Amino acid sequence: MKKAIGIIDSGVGGLTVAHEFMRQLPKENLLYVGDTARCPYGPRPREEVIDYTWEMVEFLLDKDIKMLIIACNTATAFALDQLKRELSIPVIGVIQPGARAAIKVTRNNHVGVIGTEGTIYSGAYEKELQKIKSDIHYYGLPCPPFVPMVEKGIISGNEALKIVDTVLEPLKEQEDLDTLILGCTHYPIIKPIIQEIMGNEISIISSGEETAREASTILDMQHLLNDDEGTPEHKFYATGERHVFAQMIHRLFCQFPDKQIQIMQTKLAKRMY
Amino acid sequence: MKKAIGIIDSGVGGLTVAHEFMRQLPKENLLYVGDTARCPYGPRPREEVIDYTWEMVEFLLDKDIKMLIIACNTATAFALDQLKRELSIPVIGVIQPGARAAIKVTRNNHVGVIGTEGTIYSGAYEKELQKIKSDIHYYGLPCPPFVPMVEKGIISGNEALKIVDTVLEPLKEQEDLDTLILGCTHYPIIKPIIQEIMGNEISIISSGEETAREASTILDMQHLLNDDEGTPEHKFYATGERHVFAQMIHRLFCQFPDKQIQIMQTKLAKRMY
Repeated sequence: MKKAIGIIDSGVGGLTVAHEFMRQLPKENLLYVGDTARCPYGPRPREEVIDYTWEMVEFLLDKDIKMLIIACNTATAFALDQLKRELSIPVIGVIQPGARAAIKVTRNNHVGVIGTEGTIYSGAYEKELQKIKSDIHYYGLPCPPFVPMVEKGIISGNEALKIVDTVLEPLKEQEDLDTLILGCTHYPIIKPIIQEIMGNEISIISSGEETAREASTILDMQHLLNDDEGTPEHKFYATGERHVFAQMIHRLFCQFPDKQIQIMQTKLAKRMY
Repeated sequence: MKKAIGIIDSGVGGLTVAHEFMRQLPKENLLYVGDTARCPYGPRPREEVIDYTWEMVEFLLDKDIKMLIIACNTATAFALDQLKRELSIPVIGVIQPGARAAIKVTRNNHVGVIGTEGTIYSGAYEKELQKIKSDIHYYGLPCPPFVPMVEKGIISGNEALKIVDTVLEPLKEQEDLDTLILGCTHYPIIKPIIQEIMGNEISIISSGEETAREASTILDMQHLLNDDEGTPEHKFYATGERHVFAQMIHRLFCQFPDKQIQIMQTKLAKRMY
């Protein structure tokens, strides 16, 4: 079995990222760890997020992964630079690919980002956008109701539409906006509603899609693509209860054959419990 | 002055790629060489294309570029693997980024590619698509009338519409097609007409846009992005007549300030003339 791509996340949100890896890189083996016992990371102090992230990373390094994906915006904002510096394998976060895709897509340089309070207040997207293109006009909007809404399964219908409409009100007033980054891995699940509220003229960028795309670029450049034609292995580990995690996976990955997917629980480091 | 990105092309088609670099990576210095004296490369034998490509590459290596972009589909198909093997700087062609973008965008895995006869008959796009995703259904269509049409300036209006409609007829019959790659650097100039003929449900991928995006990813990963805030230098060299080349550049790059752009003629290697 060829080396796997490792994906870490604070919980289940990163499963939308894993889904994109399965779709865009169907020959690759994947190892996913979701820290469901300690999510969400958003409200936690920086040092704690970095510690928890390292525990997941060490768990995956023991399994000899060839690339690390940080599928959590908060963990990317806090730990990406350190992980890139200290690991010898390529490390990719979800923020930079989303920012780069927005720069490609925008025609008037007016770009919005929605995410958790942690992600938006960290200023990470604005920094990345302007690192590459100084004249980007940036609008950040925290959307705290979206994650609980998605986790409760309110992902379509009138109630969902009403919540999204209310929360996005300040963005709709930005008439120049032509591109919107979904800066949280839960949001792609309600992308159709966000598109309906914002209108079809707005290009919507899902960080997960763009992260899988960039991982493909880097793997190709470094001659690390898996060219085995056999069935790949996709292993999902949760630090919390297995049952809810498994339900989420089966709902999200219904088009992939079950036999490819293994779902397990892990305790990570001893100090965790 | 920080090191530049080098772009080589058989002539003027690659200017659409350079344009995307100026838009998506506005802080980067660029050196472009177009082999206008010997274009098109399409009908030339493989060994000749490889020789000419190396002459441009050596010209740019002497100027100490940090990355090489092969903005010509034919040169990518014939010379990319060799250049990647032999150069110590990152080398990016236009075929792989287009293929990867199509894999990201397609929802039903039915992908079309249009290009010159050389590009389509080389099978390079099909090979790249299937290297990553084996179950892609590929439809390749050579469109010989498009390059002369664009070079004559027939890029809008009824005549252009009629030509494109006739040439794309076989693709329109492929009802499952949801994604189309413009596998020739001239084609983005007639993208609006291609979209009109193919319908708005088809996602159209411009290899140039995607190549600039992937270059940005690789530069970022290798810590090679230019963070100077000064005005970048964009130098364009043609092996043929300066005047026509300059006209094309001024038409295409009208939104960029003239002072950034220098246009020169070069003889490349001695053996050229």
